Amino acid sequence: MALRARALYDFNSENPGEISVKEHEIITLYSEQDIEGWLEGSNSRGERGLLPASYVEILRTDTFSSFNNNSRYANIPTGGFDLKNQTHESYSTAPASSITAYPALPQQQQHHHPGTPASDDDWDDDWDDHSSVADEPRVVGGGYRNYEGNGPSGYSISTSSMPRGAQQAKSSATVSRNLNRFSTFVKSGGEAFVLGEASGFVKDGDKICVVMGQYGPEWQENPYPFTCTIDDPTKQTKFKGMKSYISYKLTPTHTQNQVNRRYKHFDWLYARLVEKFPVISVPHIPEKQATGRFEEDFISKRRRGLIWWMNHMTSHPVLARCDVFQHFLTCSSTDEKSWKQGKRKAEKDEMVGANFFLTISTPAAPLDLQDVESRIDGFKAFTKKMDDSVIQVNATLNEFARKQIAGFKKEYQKVGLSFKYLNQAFEMDQQSYSVGLNQAIAYTGEAYEAIGDFFVEQPKQDVDPLMDLLALYQGHLTNYPDIIHVQKGALTKVKESQKHVEEGKMEGQQADGIRERCNIISFATLAEIQHFHQTRVRDFKSQMQHYLQQQISFFQKITGKLEEALQKYDDA
Amino acid sequence: MALRARALYDFNSENPGEISVKEHEIITLYSEQDIEGWLEGSNSRGERGLLPASYVEILRTDTFSSFNNNSRYANIPTGGFDLKNQTHESYSTAPASSITAYPALPQQQQHHHPGTPASDDDWDDDWDDHSSVADEPRVVGGGYRNYEGNGPSGYSISTSSMPRGAQQAKSSATVSRNLNRFSTFVKSGGEAFVLGEASGFVKDGDKICVVMGQYGPEWQENPYPFTCTIDDPTKQTKFKGMKSYISYKLTPTHTQNQVNRRYKHFDWLYARLVEKFPVISVPHIPEKQATGRFEEDFISKRRRGLIWWMNHMTSHPVLARCDVFQHFLTCSSTDEKSWKQGKRKAEKDEMVGANFFLTISTPAAPLDLQDVESRIDGFKAFTKKMDDSVIQVNATLNEFARKQIAGFKKEYQKVGLSFKYLNQAFEMDQQSYSVGLNQAIAYTGEAYEAIGDFFVEQPKQDVDPLMDLLALYQGHLTNYPDIIHVQKGALTKVKESQKHVEEGKMEGQQADGIRERCNIISFATLAEIQHFHQTRVRDFKSQMQHYLQQQISFFQKITGKLEEALQKYDDA
Repeated sequence: MALRARALYDFNSENPGEISVKEHEIITLYSEQDIEGWLEGSNSRGERGLLPASYVEILRTDTFSSFNNNSRYANIPTGGFDLKNQTHESYSTAPASSITAYPALPQQQQHHHPGTPASDDDWDDDWDDHSSVADEPRVVGGGYRNYEGNGPSGYSISTSSMPRGAQQAKSSATVSRNLNRFSTFVKSGGEAFVLGEASGFVKDGDKICVVMGQYGPEWQENPYPFTCTIDDPTKQTKFKGMKSYISYKLTPTHTQNQVNRRYKHFDWLYARLVEKFPVISVPHIPEKQATGRFEEDFISKRRRGLIWWMNHMTSHPVLARCDVFQHFLTCSSTDEKSWKQGKRKAEKDEMVGANFFLTISTPAAPLDLQDVESRIDGFKAFTKKMDDSVIQVNATLNEFARKQIAGFKKEYQKVGLSFKYLNQAFEMDQQSYSVGLNQAIAYTGEAYEAIGDFFVEQPKQDVDPLMDLLALYQGHLTNYPDIIHVQKGALTKVKESQKHVEEGKMEGQQADGIRERCNIISFATLAEIQHFHQTRVRDFKSQMQHYLQQQISFFQKITGKLEEALQKYDDA
Repeated sequence: MALRARALYDFNSENPGEISVKEHEIITLYSEQDIEGWLEGSNSRGERGLLPASYVEILRTDTFSSFNNNSRYANIPTGGFDLKNQTHESYSTAPASSITAYPALPQQQQHHHPGTPASDDDWDDDWDDHSSVADEPRVVGGGYRNYEGNGPSGYSISTSSMPRGAQQAKSSATVSRNLNRFSTFVKSGGEAFVLGEASGFVKDGDKICVVMGQYGPEWQENPYPFTCTIDDPTKQTKFKGMKSYISYKLTPTHTQNQVNRRYKHFDWLYARLVEKFPVISVPHIPEKQATGRFEEDFISKRRRGLIWWMNHMTSHPVLARCDVFQHFLTCSSTDEKSWKQGKRKAEKDEMVGANFFLTISTPAAPLDLQDVESRIDGFKAFTKKMDDSVIQVNATLNEFARKQIAGFKKEYQKVGLSFKYLNQAFEMDQQSYSVGLNQAIAYTGEAYEAIGDFFVEQPKQDVDPLMDLLALYQGHLTNYPDIIHVQKGALTKVKESQKHVEEGKMEGQQADGIRERCNIISFATLAEIQHFHQTRVRDFKSQMQHYLQQQISFFQKITGKLEEALQKYDDA
């Protein structure tokens, strides 16, 4: 079972149970299954322990190593971007270091493939059911060879995120297929659906309605709205204490039953959702981090990120109601059997990708596709500009927090110290009329030192929450190029089919079908955009209010401290 | 009449009417009389105009140039420090740049000799009476040759600040004279007085009483207390507009008559007071400044300095009542004749230096000189420590102001700008539910920009006044080494005389006289120290209160601005 691997980078052990390795060092692995991104093995000095999977390359003859696949955002499926042809913009082009408060080394990030249940890298032995999942032929990639004509076989992992529903339909289209088999339009199932290749049985419970609202198409509201709290992140251990993880207590309001979930569960769920919903912006879960995962700041930041994520999940009319999310929220943490059943069911879900569009019901009146195009273009420009400004606000707030913690604190504390120093001089005069002033100046010194500390504590109260919000929206903004790409792909097919009809190469009926299906995709896309705007206005309003309230409290606290100091002079 | 001079430094003309010169350049002067520190002449390129007197050395055969005599503090008479022998500490050793907000080039400072009416450098022709003053034999220095046995003749100017009363007394002492003829003890007249060499007719009106107060010896309170406002600094011109000066309106409360005074009048008065009162800490007038004298900031700063100075003058029981100050406050600015009479009277005042001590009347019970010595030592340590801390507070506040004006402003404005940038992105969505948020975010951006401006304006309100106070006290603290030196000199004479009596070299009666006169000096010194402490407690109390009140208003202003911004979200 022992495998050999080569270290790609230096890694210095930071915690008990970890081993250090040098670049190019050969490591013996006990398993190629990583455990939350960690591999167990021994280094050339015979030390045994854990090391980050992303730091090593497993040595084998048929290697297509997917370990060193980095992304700035957590949980973007490998197949989520066009690998061969960047036809749409990836908006966020700023270096990660300028936009995240605690930038992680790129090597320490993302190395798993949420879209790939078969790889099961992130599942550990407590419910490692990868062997049974591997029995499913559709999962190992063999079933999709027909899609891989122009892609290297090494991409088999990523292409497993292609629509499973698509393969079940017979191709009857005469409209040409996209040459780029790795475009989002293709991978999301958008193309297959538009070309009429998707088919499946849609249960009533699976129906997703787009309705015409005051501002245009919108998702039908969730008739049973709920929220879910995330509390008490607690450290748990396994492997005789060698490895630890954090467990979160989730309590949805509609069941009031607490369930315990780990980050990897969120991660798994996220992968399911991305696979299932081609034109829905699934909120990103907080980023992975290899080191310092048990530090208080990190745990607190991740919890805040998960709370925001949960908030976006429960307030999304489609995501909140979907089976896999409900399974995640309601399945007892102790009932392993039920969990596994639900997990397998979700992984076998047929109404994903192309078939997802089958579940959408729209208003009877079709959209004006020209109007749709202009609205989509407008939204594309909006997201581009918002992404730029979010990056800028993020960088500014990050710097603002840093300045408050360092420079501002220092200045106020220096003022405090110099008043204290003055007081020390004045203390040398102990005449009765001096004593009151001496005490008042001493207190003033302390007040300024306290104000210095206020500046250190403040960013946690206002800047951090605002930056958490920005991080979530940065995730959404990276989703939209793909969503827009799917809609635009569908629109292109409509235009092509019209041309074919004009040229007599296609039946009008077939073109009508394409237009109808493009209409469905457009309704869904516009509903999602509407949801995005409404959520954005709601979130930014409440967070700006929170930010300002906290800033006001902060300055009031300073004022209060200074007023206390001023009062001391009354008796001086 | 034309004289030649050599430039000591490069000087670049900054204002109309000035001429530039290079180091070593030969200049033709039209007069060696400077006008408020400026000489009129022409440079080697034939340009005619003004240049700073301190930048040139007048070329003549008998030169002992006193022009290049610099001091960090304005108005410290050249003779105010021991030139040959630094027997007492000069407390303020920090470089000027670290303790003044607007450090002047040392070359541009002080080049006149307030203790020297004969030089009359600072008097211009509108009442230039130097020829008549020069008629007085005591002024030109010749009368003091007996004091100059061990000093170079070049010091004649500075030694003219020696007690005029002293020369009128016959030396009858057997206690040895100090070898150092330039020690403050000698120059102030302290030695002459202790040795019984001072004599003069003390009018009742000149009597100065030290009384025993709650906390020890103190000056008898001024029975007619008054204050004096300084308003409306206005620019006046002369020399056909080539030279300008600032005139201040002074209104004392006891006369309610406004008089106009220029800086040079303050300067002249200051010199008289320093000469007259050996153990009184005469507040320093604000520093001279060669360039930028008509800039608003400078005028405002000088006026604030003069107000503080006036406040210390009027609240000092001895200084407030003295004739020369009353003349300065009450003589009509338009009645040149009265002014000149008063001016001459002050310059001829005999009750200065040694004779000043003759005017002091003390309580009957003599002081315990051992106790006095310990109190003086305690005060010496106090002033040393206070001086250190004042330098430190000054440097800190200066830096604090600088940071607020630059760094803090920048951070808040950057936050404001980034919110505005976010608003620009959000403006691209004009749906009705977005408009309120957009406006609110735009306003928030403006609010943060305004807060940035608040930080720029704030130091004027709080830091500057506190620094003005510190500057005044720095002046007092440089006075005290001399005052302490006089008292210690007297005490040493007592000890010497006791020894002489024990050795049979001196009559007991003579020693008693020395002890009695030392008692007078000690009463006066302790009264002055008491006054210093009481004034210090009063001033620092009120200024710390003012500082804190301003800081509170500042943070309340910020809070108010943020509350305005927060309200905008109510309708969003």
